[in-house]
Formats: sequence, structure tokens, C-alpha cells
Amino acid sequence: MAATAKTDPESIKSEEAPAAPPCRSNYSSVDVALRGLLFAASVTAVVVMVTAKQTEIVPVPGLPIKVPLEAKFSDSPAFVYFISALSVAGLYGILTALASISIISKPAHATRYLLHFALWDVLMLGIVASATGAAGGVAYIGLKGNSHVGWGKVCNVYDKFCQHVGSSIAVALFASVLLVLLTMLSVFSIYRKIPK
Amino acid sequence: MAATAKTDPESIKSEEAPAAPPCRSNYSSVDVALRGLLFAASVTAVVVMVTAKQTEIVPVPGLPIKVPLEAKFSDSPAFVYFISALSVAGLYGILTALASISIISKPAHATRYLLHFALWDVLMLGIVASATGAAGGVAYIGLKGNSHVGWGKVCNVYDKFCQHVGSSIAVALFASVLLVLLTMLSVFSIYRKIPK
Repeated sequence: MAATAKTDPESIKSEEAPAAPPCRSNYSSVDVALRGLLFAASVTAVVVMVTAKQTEIVPVPGLPIKVPLEAKFSDSPAFVYFISALSVAGLYGILTALASISIISKPAHATRYLLHFALWDVLMLGIVASATGAAGGVAYIGLKGNSHVGWGKVCNVYDKFCQHVGSSIAVALFASVLLVLLTMLSVFSIYRKIPK
Repeated sequence: MAATAKTDPESIKSEEAPAAPPCRSNYSSVDVALRGLLFAASVTAVVVMVTAKQTEIVPVPGLPIKVPLEAKFSDSPAFVYFISALSVAGLYGILTALASISIISKPAHATRYLLHFALWDVLMLGIVASATGAAGGVAYIGLKGNSHVGWGKVCNVYDKFCQHVGSSIAVALFASVLLVLLTMLSVFSIYRKIPK
């Protein structure tokens, strides 16, 4: 009886032990994939925004002449902030993807890494979400104008520029959602390590 | 010998048991305080933005007359989104503050609550940060204008309106920082429960 009592917990342990690593590496591979996607989305958003240039011949107000005018991202401080934030997010994405890969090979320090990931993910989310909001707010004025304060539409003239800006903001929104998911994944991975 | 061996672990346990609750309640009280602050900051931001009304007599472009024109938050969709987001954050702040107080009295379910707090905090942070960014982007155009697309300044005329909007955005930025701290606190509280 004593012998069976001793072997029982061991057999349970040996059944549990192989079950844990695939589960952890499963989480880690999702984490790496999401961070790779974050990198791709951020770089796409930055490239699409930077290449948003369009020159149109527009009339000068008050004068009977027309001049070529170029629209580019650096015309708006909000778009400059957007590019800075998404560049940082892209760099963060690739660095943490590499760090996440290194964790799969060294699972001993995994929990401490997960804590750092969760804390930094939250900060990055704040930066990327605010940048997306700022660019979105300005782009919306460009699209619809604001009759109350006399700000005219821009997108009826600079159509391709606005398409680029709109696409870039949509991709940045996707990056924000990725950062929300990444933080939730890190939090949940930490939570799973608490013995029930 | 056997008697002392039996009493030793018990005495260690009884020493550990009273040490844990003050530490946990310490974290919980910080959590409650931060959530209370989040509620206060959100309500302040909403009230200051809603009360941002100013009527000025401005010239009509192209005509030699002047008419009274009122500036209010509903003139800009970004400010409407800002008010919606901050109202939700305020409601979230007071509800989770009450939930956090209820945890102090029932520490058994604390970990599960902390997980839910962390997950929802992240979502709220995304909403509040993007709303702050959107309102900030539009307010910056109101303050400085944008000569590239012919959007004129507004704040040289509607000075009090702009002071309200600026203060409201500053308080919302503080609320965003509170949400970052709250998420980090929840993550760290979960992390602390993992046996080292």
C-alpha cells in the first residue's frame, strides 16, 4: 500500500511534466507571431505614411493664379508624431520577437521576461493608441472639413494622399489591437503560472 | 524531536500568514486609490470639456458684417469621441474601485479579479489614449493652425474655450497615465503570487 501511495504522485507528476512544455511553447509561439505581426504592421504604417506625397495645382486664395502644391506627412505635427510612435513600435516589435524566441530555448527565466513584456507592452500601447488617435483626428478633418471653424476639406483635391493616410491609420489601428492582445497574452501567461 | 519537527513548520506558517494580508491590502488600497483618482480625473475632464462654451462676435468672410458665433465641444467629432471615452472611463473607474474594495474583504477570489482588472484596464487604456490623442491633434490645429492647408487658428479668438479644452486634455493624459499604472499594478500583483 505504501509503495503504491508513493508511486501514485510520481506517476501524476510524470504525466503533468511533459504536458507543460508544449503548452508554454504554444503560448510563446503565438507571442512571437503576434510580435512579428506588430513589426510588420508598424513598418507598413510608417512606409505607407512616408510615401503619402501628392502634388496638385491649386488656386491661390485671392489671386487669379494656380500654383503646384505638394501635400506630405510633415505638413502636420500629428502625422510626424504618428511616424515616430510607429517607428518605435516597429523596433520594439522586432526586438521583443527576438527576445521571445530566446525564451523558448531558455524557459527558466520565462516568467521574469513575461513580466517585463507585459509592463512594456502597456507603455507601447499607450503611445501607439494616442498616435493613431491624433493622426485619425487630423485625417478626419482633412476628409470632412469643419464648417464651424472654416477648415476646408483636403481630400477632394489630394485624393491619393488621403488614401495613403487612411490606409496607414487603419494598419496602425491593427497594430494597437495587436498590442492589446500581446499584453493580455502576457498577463494570462503569468496568471497561468499561479498554482491553483 | 518529532514533536518539535511538527511544530516548526506550523510556527513558520503562523508567522507567514499574518505577514501576507497587510502586503496584499497595501496593494489593494493603492489600487482603490488609483481607481478613485481615475474616476475623479475622468469626470473632471468631461465636465471641463462640456463647459467649454464661448460666444464671440466674429466677421463673416466676404461680407462686411459681424455675427455672434458660439464655440462648443460638439463642433468637433474628435471632442465628442473624447467625451464618450472619458465618460466610459469614469464609470469604469468607480465600478472597479467598488469591486476592488469588495476584494479586500474577500481575498479568496483576489487573483481571478486581478486578471479581469488587468485585461479590462488594457482595453480602457487603448480607448482613453486614442481619445486623448484625437482631441489633442484637433486642439493643436486650433492653437497653431495649419498654413499648408489653410486651416486658421481658433484660439486667438476663442481663448477661454481653448483653455478649457487644453485643461481637459491634460487631465485626460493624467487619466491615461493612471490606467498604465493600474495595469502595471495588476500585472505585478499577479506576478507576486507565483511561488519563487
